[in-house]
Amino acid sequence: MKNTFQYYLSILIFFLILACEPTTRKAPDEREIKTEEKEIKQGPISLVIHGGAGTIRRENMTEEQDARYRAKLAEALETGYATLESGAPAMDAVIAAIQIMEESPLFNAGVGAVFTNEGKNELDAAVMDGKNRDAGAVAGVSTIKSPISAALSVMKDSPHVMMSGPGAEKFATEQGLEIVDPEYFFTQSRYDVLQKVKQREKEKSKSAALLDFPDSKYGTVGCVALDKNGNIAAGTSTGGMTNKRYGRIGDAPIIAAGTYADNATCGVSATGHGEYFIRSVVAYDVAAKMKYAGMSLDAAANKIVYEELVDFGGSGGLIALDRAGNITMPFNTSGMYRGYMNKKDTPRVFIYQDE
Amino acid sequence: MKNTFQYYLSILIFFLILACEPTTRKAPDEREIKTEEKEIKQGPISLVIHGGAGTIRRENMTEEQDARYRAKLAEALETGYATLESGAPAMDAVIAAIQIMEESPLFNAGVGAVFTNEGKNELDAAVMDGKNRDAGAVAGVSTIKSPISAALSVMKDSPHVMMSGPGAEKFATEQGLEIVDPEYFFTQSRYDVLQKVKQREKEKSKSAALLDFPDSKYGTVGCVALDKNGNIAAGTSTGGMTNKRYGRIGDAPIIAAGTYADNATCGVSATGHGEYFIRSVVAYDVAAKMKYAGMSLDAAANKIVYEELVDFGGSGGLIALDRAGNITMPFNTSGMYRGYMNKKDTPRVFIYQDE
Repeated sequence: MKNTFQYYLSILIFFLILACEPTTRKAPDEREIKTEEKEIKQGPISLVIHGGAGTIRRENMTEEQDARYRAKLAEALETGYATLESGAPAMDAVIAAIQIMEESPLFNAGVGAVFTNEGKNELDAAVMDGKNRDAGAVAGVSTIKSPISAALSVMKDSPHVMMSGPGAEKFATEQGLEIVDPEYFFTQSRYDVLQKVKQREKEKSKSAALLDFPDSKYGTVGCVALDKNGNIAAGTSTGGMTNKRYGRIGDAPIIAAGTYADNATCGVSATGHGEYFIRSVVAYDVAAKMKYAGMSLDAAANKIVYEELVDFGGSGGLIALDRAGNITMPFNTSGMYRGYMNKKDTPRVFIYQDE
Repeated sequence: MKNTFQYYLSILIFFLILACEPTTRKAPDEREIKTEEKEIKQGPISLVIHGGAGTIRRENMTEEQDARYRAKLAEALETGYATLESGAPAMDAVIAAIQIMEESPLFNAGVGAVFTNEGKNELDAAVMDGKNRDAGAVAGVSTIKSPISAALSVMKDSPHVMMSGPGAEKFATEQGLEIVDPEYFFTQSRYDVLQKVKQREKEKSKSAALLDFPDSKYGTVGCVALDKNGNIAAGTSTGGMTNKRYGRIGDAPIIAAGTYADNATCGVSATGHGEYFIRSVVAYDVAAKMKYAGMSLDAAANKIVYEELVDFGGSGGLIALDRAGNITMPFNTSGMYRGYMNKKDTPRVFIYQDE
């Protein structure tokens, strides 16, 4: 009898293990996806920014250049942090920090944007609010002083998420945003780079020009903030690629590619070779890895930047933060202008890989 | 003895069920993410299409209208299927099926596209190839006969993923695509709808006009195909929203929102209220749910369309298929023009919810 019992038992165990296997992948109804809002009375406030990733090497920078970048990054952080400290929403801090960088000729956004093949500055920007996943973006605008404020206005004042070209400029004008002559964005140094890239293209080829000027394909500014109510917001603003043609739109103004925010997971702003970032859905993928695969913010961001994007051929980086105030700033290029601030009077700024 | 056996048996079953439970959420390192290519010698071929979701009710359609839609959907399916049968890549079938719908005035894409506030047809399209996640898109074009072929050309003939407006048209012209007078896309019935919507907007308000003409906010065509080599491709083409302003860009041309394909998971083409689809990253979310949460194609698509989009306020639907040839076509509106074909001479077409 005992033998019979053991015999049936082992058959039973075998079939039960078989039966259990499929449940390792839960049916949709059982898998809880957390999206609900939780009221946080007074949480940690925190801010992270980037000013673009690329071939940024210590040996190619003068001490003075290095210092100027660090000072401007610190100024953007302090401005954003003061906004958060005053009790304002995360989105206000994102706009404030990004506007500091848009107004600086150091970064490829606003003043200092790179030039298109036709010698114009065509600017893109996007914002997303993690509280309700509301979003706004503009692409290919040339007359709006602060593209990031136009993205905010699309989000707040229109039923749309994305507007482009002259239509977006018409909307911004109607909303009373500051309109400038396209000359406002002009900087001699960026214009000189366009001439050099075009010359090299004529002498050699498009791909040779890209190789000689590897950074002509990216450069962006971005910010992600966490306010004291536990709300996350993210924003990105850029001039796109030097020598870009054909009304090219990169990842920055595309929700899920260059910009994403959801209180349930994280806020992200990316910077890199936009085409690869669109095809890899970089910003939302960080959130999806957290939401569905249970990864931490850091693990999710590292996985896509150091492994998946590298395998795919996509150079660049991202900044991200989650609701607990965790911050990550991975990049697979030699440098990324970046920094964070989560303590009063202590902006932390970095440029190279080894710091 | 028999009772003792049953007693131990039930205890055993209880503990085995418990033991199985924790593995339902695997740690990130254990969770295998399949991305590698596997050569399939001769797999099943399959094709799924949509012609837009919306307030499509049996009682509002004449028998003749109903028959015309079904015939055109069947024609698109048969054309795409014949392409797959000939051994051509999935992308060729996607283009062929979508062009049938672009050329038909029945659908809001190509001829028959809805009108912008300014009385123009501004067309958007995107394609994505699941083999290498290559992608192309155009937004706001008015002179390219087949927007889906322009999206394909951006993918194949440029280093970019997305081009917009006159720049995209210049590129299409240089690539030798067929250019038409914007009048080519004109249809009287769509023009009449614009006049009615604008009239209602004048009498009442924008939101009243949207309520009276609920379908003025969407309508799209799309196709996802699986070829005999196991490659998936997806495409979407649309005229966007009736009465749209400000160079609005919807979800259709945005990779990850309206269009996505990856052999490792699935191909998706969405149709619906674009703003909600962008903010929910609908197309890529289906893939992410499969890749990271281990859901089936059907479970993932149903979860976002019937639960998450409904909670979020986003009406519409999607079509999707995976590498095994599984097909899903969920929608949360009263109807969606749709169909699939995975057997010779058997196109299956549907319009309403109850079929």
